[in-house]
Amino acid sequence: MKLLTVVKIGGNIVDNPLALEQFLIKFNQIAEPKILIHGGGVMASEMARKMGIKTKMYKGRRITDYETLKMVTMIYAGWINKTIVANLQKFGCNAIGLSGADCDVVPATRRSPEPIDFGYVGDVDPAKINNLAIMSFLGRGICPVFCAITHDKNGSLLNTNADTMASSIAIAMSRDYCTKLIYCFEKDGVLYDQNNPESIIPLLTHKRFVELQDEGKIVEGMIPKLENAFSAIENGVSEVYVKHAKNLDNDIQTLLK
Amino acid sequence: MKLLTVVKIGGNIVDNPLALEQFLIKFNQIAEPKILIHGGGVMASEMARKMGIKTKMYKGRRITDYETLKMVTMIYAGWINKTIVANLQKFGCNAIGLSGADCDVVPATRRSPEPIDFGYVGDVDPAKINNLAIMSFLGRGICPVFCAITHDKNGSLLNTNADTMASSIAIAMSRDYCTKLIYCFEKDGVLYDQNNPESIIPLLTHKRFVELQDEGKIVEGMIPKLENAFSAIENGVSEVYVKHAKNLDNDIQTLLK
Repeated sequence: MKLLTVVKIGGNIVDNPLALEQFLIKFNQIAEPKILIHGGGVMASEMARKMGIKTKMYKGRRITDYETLKMVTMIYAGWINKTIVANLQKFGCNAIGLSGADCDVVPATRRSPEPIDFGYVGDVDPAKINNLAIMSFLGRGICPVFCAITHDKNGSLLNTNADTMASSIAIAMSRDYCTKLIYCFEKDGVLYDQNNPESIIPLLTHKRFVELQDEGKIVEGMIPKLENAFSAIENGVSEVYVKHAKNLDNDIQTLLK
Repeated sequence: MKLLTVVKIGGNIVDNPLALEQFLIKFNQIAEPKILIHGGGVMASEMARKMGIKTKMYKGRRITDYETLKMVTMIYAGWINKTIVANLQKFGCNAIGLSGADCDVVPATRRSPEPIDFGYVGDVDPAKINNLAIMSFLGRGICPVFCAITHDKNGSLLNTNADTMASSIAIAMSRDYCTKLIYCFEKDGVLYDQNNPESIIPLLTHKRFVELQDEGKIVEGMIPKLENAFSAIENGVSEVYVKHAKNLDNDIQTLLK
């Protein structure tokens, strides 16, 4: 089976041209076929403030009304996606920017409005991802760069969680590739002690993940991120890592098992 | 030689969901391979006002500073492009949204800052368009949907005139296809009398175009639009039409010869 590397980066890195360039140089050095998935939440919150769009949240999760959908599509599929593509082209990596609507690669289902209406939010089923279209790009040496905007196949764009988008694509590609999934974020790995950046857990099993939640060592945003990561392992992805974008080319990381 | 239809629409149609839907239904009925190119100037001007970005103009042409480039990329490559793609997918048309940076399909050269610095503005040479990449999409039944954002191959995105983008792509594709180029805009064709919407000129030669300029019958924005259109004919495009988007499926139009 051929190797495939799927890398997810946060939106914050795109706002820092130097960090983005350094990351993309390392990403471009991955020899085997590769896919990049990016977020963009930081820039979206800033933009919402500038445009006077009130960010509506429910228990820490963004509610995507029509104005918010418009804004996140502009930022994720427009500025961030094309900035990454233009930078990869500069380094000789033949990138193509994609939303889930393009070639219908990632169809999604609008989340039920009951009990809470999250608005234009799409949930992805890895079994419905058009992996043939993605393979056709990879087979021609093209590197797909995904934003986490999907569509409902009925004309509506949908906002999807970028971590879920990454795990869903990695799961879908695992049918045909030996797939490695790397979540890059702003820390060096999963930390045992949030106040000690050196307390990286080198190997994290699902059992230990549950224990650490019970102990209150893994909290808040880290929980859904790791749930996405473990779901990838349970569904065919060979290896999943959590690490800092700047360490893409070294072994400072947490390996999930 | 196989047929290819290249259609250019203005950005204004995207702001009108009903007009957009009606246009896309007709566009989807074009049986042969097809390409769509869209503008977005109207929405960009509105957004600039909302975000407090001052539109800088020189003799009627927009100066694209970095903030403006960011905004037009968000609107053109983000919201407008993906909205069109999602709508085409709804009608069963397998569309893919592209900027010039994606797969390096449309590289451009940043316009010289002398005598006037127009900022991040890209000029396109049809000979440098990657028509093999575009043909590879068409060959797989995929319909490319282009916004007029290009790149300089050195990491910078560039803002390109959408009419020029359309004529350049049509010229590039004429090497391999018998290409028809249709400019859709807000009138039924080239009018002899601006105040009489029924005074459509059915056939316009380049000689007559020059005469009508001298007579003051063709003025302002219509001049560069028609120069782009005539340049397409002079460079291999088989047929060029100017018409209203709502008339895509009938013969109310001006044919340029």
